Amino acid sequence: MKVLIIGASGTIGKAITKEFEKKHDVIRAGRNGADVSVDNTSVESIIEMYDQVGKVDAVVNAAGGANFASISDLTPELNEKGIESKLKGQINLVLIGKDYVKDGGSFTLTTGVMMDDPIPLGASAAMANGGVKSFVKAASIEMPRGIRINCVSPNIVQESWEKLGGFFAGFEPVPAIRVARAFVKSVEGAQTGQNYEVY
Amino acid sequence: MKVLIIGASGTIGKAITKEFEKKHDVIRAGRNGADVSVDNTSVESIIEMYDQVGKVDAVVNAAGGANFASISDLTPELNEKGIESKLKGQINLVLIGKDYVKDGGSFTLTTGVMMDDPIPLGASAAMANGGVKSFVKAASIEMPRGIRINCVSPNIVQESWEKLGGFFAGFEPVPAIRVARAFVKSVEGAQTGQNYEVY
Ligand SMILES: NC(=O)c1ccc[n+]([C@@H]2O[C@H](COP(=O)([O-])OP(=O)(O)OC[C@H]3O[C@@H](n4cnc5c(N)ncnc54)[C@H](OP(=O)(O)O)[C@@H]3O)[C@@H](O)[C@H]2O)c1
Ligand SMILES: NC(=O)c1ccc[n+]([C@@H]2O[C@H](COP(=O)([O-])OP(=O)(O)OC[C@H]3O[C@@H](n4cnc5c(N)ncnc54)[C@H](OP(=O)(O)O)[C@@H]3O)[C@@H](O)[C@H]2O)c1
Repeated sequence: MKVLIIGASGTIGKAITKEFEKKHDVIRAGRNGADVSVDNTSVESIIEMYDQVGKVDAVVNAAGGANFASISDLTPELNEKGIESKLKGQINLVLIGKDYVKDGGSFTLTTGVMMDDPIPLGASAAMANGGVKSFVKAASIEMPRGIRINCVSPNIVQESWEKLGGFFAGFEPVPAIRVARAFVKSVEGAQTGQNYEVY
Repeated sequence: MKVLIIGASGTIGKAITKEFEKKHDVIRAGRNGADVSVDNTSVESIIEMYDQVGKVDAVVNAAGGANFASISDLTPELNEKGIESKLKGQINLVLIGKDYVKDGGSFTLTTGVMMDDPIPLGASAAMANGGVKSFVKAASIEMPRGIRINCVSPNIVQESWEKLGGFFAGFEPVPAIRVARAFVKSVEGAQTGQNYEVY
């Protein structure tokens, strides 16, 4: 399969890429993507990426950010990063990309544990995660040409623990390879509309 | 209690208003609000509304829309209404309003059944609903000064059946009064972080 991975150079993206490269033809994307560059906060940039890459079997997204801020500090402006990047960035990859995915292909997006097990400073990211999860569930019932769509909800991963563990008091980090396997399940499996929790 | 209801003139807002007027001092808001006007897609307009209204005990929102479109027809542009109105419109009422709500007061937002029981054409609304639900859950753990936050997820209501029933094949509509009671539970009760399903 030809698998386009957006965010391939990231902590989770690297683990996904390693796993998919074992069996598939992988295209690595990101703002500084090794194979193709894309800024998923720009509709034009997403269109350019797909035009460059052509038809693919699977689109996998592991890119997207949100500001960490307490509710007292969170402003509409600070909340925009989560809206533009983690939420719309992912959804626009689907809305624009559906014409570039082959019959029976798939999209797999990324949510995260913060929507289910909230942490201080995490409301903006949780919002984006919840939006993506519900979009995936609803979109799955009417994707054209047998295209499937799922998302993967990672717990905090061991590889991010040093940098982010301070935000996740008492969480039990999971190895990124477990998260990568959920992406494999989404792409090589036959389910749709799922949010695979890797907790 | 002084209760600010945004969307008070709507199908669900009318039922909420009727219920709250029995015991509380209600302020009715909307773009053509009977007491105060607000466009919740504008940060400036939300600030003006709160400045006009002053401190309140509870903010209740029953305003917000999204475009109905199939995944094949949904574009990033069409998806913007759900982002701006149903999602950001509600969240900005909280982010801006938290300083105008009295100690121990509350926010109650509106989600909807489409995120849990998806229907064709409903992905954009589902996305917004899911974002609001997860935001509410995460924000509730760090709201300042004992302020609570919940949302109510209505099924399709009987009062909208004639207009919208065609989209909800096989659904069992609920009377708007049942939805209104969930808002009363949120405002007069003591729970926080909840999404009250009225299905
Ligand atoms: N790490 C965790 O423990 C964890 C847990 C739960 C959920 N998640 C979620 O998983 C996703 C990935 O997390 P991560 O820790 O792997 O992130 P990361 O290490 O910061 O990597 C982000 C990746 O996305 C790319 N990227 C960033 N902004 C982009 C944009 N605007 N357009 C296109 N590509 C962009 C980056 O490459 P360029 O710099 O070249 O663009 C990079 O490849 C995020 O949504 C995160 O919230 C992570
Ligand atoms: N009706 C249902 O069966 C049902 C079921 C599940 C969920 N919901 C959700 O419940 C909410 C209310 O639904 P509804 O059927 O009662 O809607 P509605 O009858 O269309 O009423 C909408 C209300 O919101 C106000 N409004 C609209 N746009 C606004 C804006 N930009 N700023 C401020 N106020 C605005 C309107 O007044 P003005 O025109 O004066 O602004 C009106 O009072 C929506 O989020 C809807 O998705 C409804």
